[in-house]
Formats: sequence, C-alpha cells, structure tokens
Amino acid sequence: MRTIRWENGTIITIDQTLLPSEYRAIECKTVPTLCEAIVSLRIRGAPALGAAGGYGVALAAHTGTASTLSEFMRDLEIASDRIRMTRPTAINLMWGVDRVMDTVRRAGSIDEARRIALSEATAIADEDVERNTRLSRHGAALFEDGDTVLTHCNAGRLACVDVGTALGVIRAAAEEGKAISVVSCETRPLNQGSRLTVWELMQDKIPVTLIADSAAGLMMRKGLIDKVIVGADRITKDAVFNKIGTYTHSVLAKEHKIPFYVAAPISTFDPTGLERDVVIEERDPDELRRIQDVMLAPADAAVYNPAFDATPMENVTAVVTEDGVMYPDESESWNDLFS
Amino acid sequence: MRTIRWENGTIITIDQTLLPSEYRAIECKTVPTLCEAIVSLRIRGAPALGAAGGYGVALAAHTGTASTLSEFMRDLEIASDRIRMTRPTAINLMWGVDRVMDTVRRAGSIDEARRIALSEATAIADEDVERNTRLSRHGAALFEDGDTVLTHCNAGRLACVDVGTALGVIRAAAEEGKAISVVSCETRPLNQGSRLTVWELMQDKIPVTLIADSAAGLMMRKGLIDKVIVGADRITKDAVFNKIGTYTHSVLAKEHKIPFYVAAPISTFDPTGLERDVVIEERDPDELRRIQDVMLAPADAAVYNPAFDATPMENVTAVVTEDGVMYPDESESWNDLFS
Repeated sequence: MRTIRWENGTIITIDQTLLPSEYRAIECKTVPTLCEAIVSLRIRGAPALGAAGGYGVALAAHTGTASTLSEFMRDLEIASDRIRMTRPTAINLMWGVDRVMDTVRRAGSIDEARRIALSEATAIADEDVERNTRLSRHGAALFEDGDTVLTHCNAGRLACVDVGTALGVIRAAAEEGKAISVVSCETRPLNQGSRLTVWELMQDKIPVTLIADSAAGLMMRKGLIDKVIVGADRITKDAVFNKIGTYTHSVLAKEHKIPFYVAAPISTFDPTGLERDVVIEERDPDELRRIQDVMLAPADAAVYNPAFDATPMENVTAVVTEDGVMYPDESESWNDLFS
Repeated sequence: MRTIRWENGTIITIDQTLLPSEYRAIECKTVPTLCEAIVSLRIRGAPALGAAGGYGVALAAHTGTASTLSEFMRDLEIASDRIRMTRPTAINLMWGVDRVMDTVRRAGSIDEARRIALSEATAIADEDVERNTRLSRHGAALFEDGDTVLTHCNAGRLACVDVGTALGVIRAAAEEGKAISVVSCETRPLNQGSRLTVWELMQDKIPVTLIADSAAGLMMRKGLIDKVIVGADRITKDAVFNKIGTYTHSVLAKEHKIPFYVAAPISTFDPTGLERDVVIEERDPDELRRIQDVMLAPADAAVYNPAFDATPMENVTAVVTEDGVMYPDESESWNDLFS
C-alpha cells in the first residue's frame, strides 16, 4: 500500500507519529487537516512531501467553494502558500505545490482546474514510485553480498510514495540475492530510525539492528560497518542537506575510509543554490525536553534543535539518482546537474 | 549540598531517577534501603558509588544489633557483601566497601567499630571533594573567557560527592570570572546529559544549551564549539573509556581542530591494561526500545547497546587530574602513570 494516496476526494496517509506502536491511516479531507499532518510530521520525507504538496493543491481545488474562476484561483493561491509554509526548508513540498499550480493556472474553468490538479498530483505520485524503482536498481550495484550498511533517519517507503530511496537501494540489493544487514541509527530527537526504519525493514524481513546515533563511531572503528547510505532533503553543488546527524556520520565514514552514499532523486538537486544560501530549520525545543509526558530535561532548558545539517560534497562518495550513480567531482556530467 | 552525605545515622542522597522533574532527597536509614537506591540507580556515578559503599558499611555498623563483637563483625561482613552485590561491575563501590571494612576489622569493640567505620567513610567522601577541587583548578587554566565548551554525559557533582570532574573544571573556570557557555549532549540512551548535566548547570546559573548527540558535528563545523571536555570511566595507556558517543565527539574534534580534554582522577587510570583487554558492557536493549511506557522501536527490534566506547589516546589533547594536566605523549611524566 502506498504511503500517500488519493481516494474519493481524500488524501489517505499513515500517521507516522504513531509508529511503531500503532499503524493507523489518517484521512485528510481539508487543507488545514493536511497542513497539521505535515507540521506534526505525520507525513514526512522529501518525496512523500512532494506528493503531499501536489495532492494538497488537488485537495484545495476539490474543496474550493468560490463560484468564479478568478476567485477560485485566488483561494487556490492562498491555500498553496499555506501548504508551502508548513515546512519552509522542504524543497520537494514547494516543488510538488508549484508543479500542480503551474498546470492549474492554465485551466479555463473550475471543473477543469480540479481535473488538471488531480491528474498532475497523481502523476507526481506515480513518477515517484517509478523513479525510486529505477534509483534503487542503480544503487544496488554499489553493494556486495555480506555488506553491513549503516543508515540514518528514514529514507524508506514511509518517506516516499513507495519503495524508498536509501532503503529502496538496500531492498533492491537484497532482492538481487545479496545478504545485506542494516544498522539503523535511532535518529534523535524524533526517532525516525528506531520508529520507522527498523519497523519498515522488519516488515520486509531484512536484518536490522538498532543503535544510538552516538554508537556509529564505535561500530565503524571496530570494522563492523562496510558502507553508509542516507537520503537527502536538498543537494546543492557543495553540500547534501539531510537529517541532523548525517554530517557526523560522514566525518566518521571519512575517518574510517568507509564509502558514504546519498540516495536521492534528481528533484532533490538545487541547481543554483549553495550551502551558504540555505537556512537550517530549527524545531521545537520540546522535542529534546520531553517524550510525551516523560521529561528528559528541565522544562525551561535552553535547546538548540536544528532539523538538518550540511555534509560537504568532499565527504560524499557518490549520489544515487534515478538516472544513475553520480560522482561529485568536477566532471561534465556532475556539473550538468547544476547548470 | 553534597550529593551523598551522613547525618545523624542516616545516609542522605538525591534520587537521580526523578531528575529533572523532581528534586527529592532520600534518607537511607537501613542497609536494604541503601541497596535498593543503588540497584535502582537513584545513586550513580563512580565516585558517588565509592562514597555510598563506604557510608553503607558505616550504616551497617550503626544499625547492627549484635551484642558481641564477633557476632557484630559477622553481621557486618554479610551486610558488606549485600552492598557489593548491588552493582557487581562498579569497581568504586567495591573499593569503598573494602576500604572501610579493612579498617573496621581492626576494631576492639562494637563502639570502636562504629566510630572507625564512620570516620573512614567520611574520609572517602572528603577526599573525593578535595581531589575534585584540585583537579578542577588545574583544568580551569585550559579555558578562556568566552569559551563555549561541549560535554557529554554527566561528569558533574551528581556523579561525585561534590564538585564533579568535567563539570568541576567548568565551574572552576566560571568561578575565576571567565564567561563559559556549555553545550550539553543529551547522551542517549539514558539521557544523563539532558536530565542531569543541564539541570546541574542551570542550578549553578552557568549558561547551558541542550543538543541531540548528533548535532555536535554541525556545531563544530559552524565554529560554535571552542573546546570539548568529558569524564572517564577508565583510562588505559592507549585509550579513554567513557560513555558511548565520546569517541564520535573525539573524531569530530580532531576533524575541526578543537581541543579534546578528559577530566578524571588518577584512580581512573588502569596502569597495566590496554584497550584490547577491556570488555565493553552491553546494556538492556529496552533502553533504546522504550522510554517508560512510550515505545521508540518495535518491541522485538534487535539492538546493539554498548555502554561505553574507547577513544584512542591520539585523539586526546590532555587529561586533567588532581595532580595536574597530563599530556598523552611519550614523555616520562606520562609514562610514569602506566608503570
């Protein structure tokens, strides 16, 4: 079942904040419900957010009540901005919203706008599945029988419409008959590794061991990790932006001469931006102060809680995309991605 | 106020399992109450456990009801064994019990035994405070006005009778009038950083910011960390054993050319052992699977949960001890520590 899909005027997705305790589908019938689901990370992961952005515009179109096309389009622009603002660093979300909005603006009637919006949003979701399938096959070639692979956060099926990026590559390698073991870092503060990646791989019967984020160094030093693969939220020419902790793993991988791979579709590339242009989103201090009702720190503790970090491209061995494995050197094919 | 002390025949300590939600002193008037407090980690930290072992024997002596010296001593041996068995791997606990028992065995009467036991236990506690005070003053010289210092776990007053080691150094630098800001890593999986270090420094009004363990890399790359200081559980000639995550911080510090200091009393040095001789304790998988009733991972997830890691000595800038700052080079003074 796809992580995010459209059924009878409703966006259906899995409430990822409840995993692993509970697998519950949520139905977003209105734009505010969808926005709440994105802000609260019930929907998360760059490709899933792309689809959510697209379906979000379709939802706004389907629930719009204006009677003239110009009023309808004005309401749609407002709703689109509202969706975009839920996660200002998530480039895929913007991209999904913009792609559907760009087609909808050509509509000659409200009905046509609704039809076009849903059609374009569906295309985004379908393309995501197809793209990740291709990406995963390209990446699988980088892994060998017997490899133990460290990953961080969740770049899996739950982060996408289906298949996944980093976990898609691991799945594809396993499907090729290679014995792959995964080490999943818990990924504080929201534990996407322990809650989602471990759950997802156990569902697929791929061997997975959970560790604290800070145990990656010990495992690499002991020679227990062969490769690292992570997803990405944004790739500029000089850096990979991904979940906080990714940069630390890249430094450890460099120290221990372990290949460090990033798996991400071409849509993740930011052709013109550089690391210095990207503002890192800071999240709610309470994510580190408490888990539900359990206090982990004084209630008034000062907290620095960046959502992402930047891994400089010199720490990245290769980027796996749907168009093949790209090496971040100064080659023409690499430079073409940023032109 | 000392973390552990003796008042009118009672051991008074802080229930560290309730921090940061609640600061509650607990009174141990009997050996079973003390044993429960140690088993449940209400008292923790190597130096504090040394004092608890010593005071525990004093408590057994003061509550002993035997009327002859031989019966009294037999009861005391039984009580001592019971205290020792609460944390069989805690070397300082055994050491504290044994040190007091060795003096008590020389007593000529029950009254003398009680007097000697309390006197020796008090000496252990006083020496710990005196030693940490000297250590802290030596270490303070390494820090400059305006420094931001990263620390991991809790090497503070709560782990000792008073003062602390790594946090003692930070306090001493602050008392010298230097403006020191601390960055405390939460220290998964038991969150000694967020629960104890942040609390302790807020009590002292030393500026402290809590981060996820995995955010250390980002902060160092941004130039936001001037120095790192941590405690140690054991120091061999080739490595520092400390809370899991310490090694990762040391690699990051090396990458960013940031001084990496260890603060530990001479008693932490293992003069004959090497890294390869030390078996790393693995702890309960549930520490990573759940926090109280909140599930963080599937209940049957495979987990690797090492308590400590080893930081090779080439990553350590200096070790701060009560006898001064030691540089881990091949100098005579360094080699003398391991002869």
